[in-house]
Amino acid sequence: VADARRVVGVIGGMGPEATADFFAKLIAATPAERDQDHLRILIDNDPSVPDRSAGVAGEGPSPAPRLAAMARGLVAAGAELLVMPCNTAHAFVAAIREAAPTVPFVDLIEAAVDASLERVPNAPAVGILATRGTLRAQLYQDGFARRGVDTVLPDEADQRLVDSAIAAVKAGRAGATERAALAGVAARLADAGAALVVTACTELPLLLRDGDVRTAAGALAPIIGSTDALVTATLRAAGVAGAPGASGTSSASARA
Amino acid sequence: VADARRVVGVIGGMGPEATADFFAKLIAATPAERDQDHLRILIDNDPSVPDRSAGVAGEGPSPAPRLAAMARGLVAAGAELLVMPCNTAHAFVAAIREAAPTVPFVDLIEAAVDASLERVPNAPAVGILATRGTLRAQLYQDGFARRGVDTVLPDEADQRLVDSAIAAVKAGRAGATERAALAGVAARLADAGAALVVTACTELPLLLRDGDVRTAAGALAPIIGSTDALVTATLRAAGVAGAPGASGTSSASARA
Repeated sequence: VADARRVVGVIGGMGPEATADFFAKLIAATPAERDQDHLRILIDNDPSVPDRSAGVAGEGPSPAPRLAAMARGLVAAGAELLVMPCNTAHAFVAAIREAAPTVPFVDLIEAAVDASLERVPNAPAVGILATRGTLRAQLYQDGFARRGVDTVLPDEADQRLVDSAIAAVKAGRAGATERAALAGVAARLADAGAALVVTACTELPLLLRDGDVRTAAGALAPIIGSTDALVTATLRAAGVAGAPGASGTSSASARA
Repeated sequence: VADARRVVGVIGGMGPEATADFFAKLIAATPAERDQDHLRILIDNDPSVPDRSAGVAGEGPSPAPRLAAMARGLVAAGAELLVMPCNTAHAFVAAIREAAPTVPFVDLIEAAVDASLERVPNAPAVGILATRGTLRAQLYQDGFARRGVDTVLPDEADQRLVDSAIAAVKAGRAGATERAALAGVAARLADAGAALVVTACTELPLLLRDGDVRTAAGALAPIIGSTDALVTATLRAAGVAGAPGASGTSSASARA
């Protein structure tokens, strides 16, 4: 079985904490009794990639050339599958697919949409906690619209709280204040009609977890972590036996 | 300053949990306000490396060729500094230095010895919690002997508890039982004369931390984590400003 597994290449560093969180969760989710049962994982943690939100807005250099270079480097080093634990950078995914056309790319946005609709199959609308770049690039609005699902976004005041929480994680100083603020934003999205809330920036699952948020009416609002969704999709695509859905068909593994 | 920093290459996967722990601790210890303040870190997490303890004992294939290949691959991918968060694998460090002669290698054993003697400068003896391979290869016995310090090792029954704790981490099922057993072993080493105890296997800091262990007389026995020691030495060698001792001379950074 080990021979059939793909070597995973991680286009990382956006931010480093999110990459480390993805790596730890991927290892924890792999059924293993000893080292040799685990996947080979190559990580390029390059935090010098230009700011993704600024790139989307056209207010800074595009990160696309750097992302393409990382993809090529990982494939040259032996990666047989690529993943990128950064939602906003998915605005530039075409450059990665072009740079590494022979290797499947597991799309984080699709993985999070899939995980959301597996959790609440008939959700009329979902809430999105993301960077301004992810929202501006319409990654989740389009991803859910293709499945007939509406999205509910924070208002400007709440988006500022989301921005602050992400910045605090990147600066290594996120704590109870950011957790509480983020839970408040998520609760307001649920009160506005979201059947669940996606932590659609890989820094945010470090602060907000499933079970943390209740609506004004006292109902639990499911939180779908984009990092967890990518872990599940990566294990499926890498061919890990025992992973959720590993024996089923996976849209992620079939795409190159 | 960013230009003067070295790209860190991590020879990893031994085990994956230990590599992820090192990665997370390296990020957390780096002074940063935004992604771009962090180090570029390339990781080859290859859990298929043959068992290190069996290799030391001559009872299995040598891991040296695989370690050398990882070192070459990381340097080809851009690494300007190599580290290996696995104590036992340091028995094969000559193969790494030979494979990557142009790049400094930060030695984990030396880092842990340095950290120990910084903590307790006049320690007559120190306790070692390690794999049988690390003990058989005399990595810590020799490292401390060069500084005039004796080592105290677990007896056979206690070494079995250490073996079990390491195996439990690798299988993802370590818990309170393993923590308590390990704390007991460490306390017995302290009672036998160890001025501190080194968690000299990178799986062990996941179970035993400074502050966890007291002697029979009630004194706190300092625990020196080999992973923490490697983080400090790596930041120094990579040229991170603000890292402990970053402006001082570093034996690690000068060695190639």
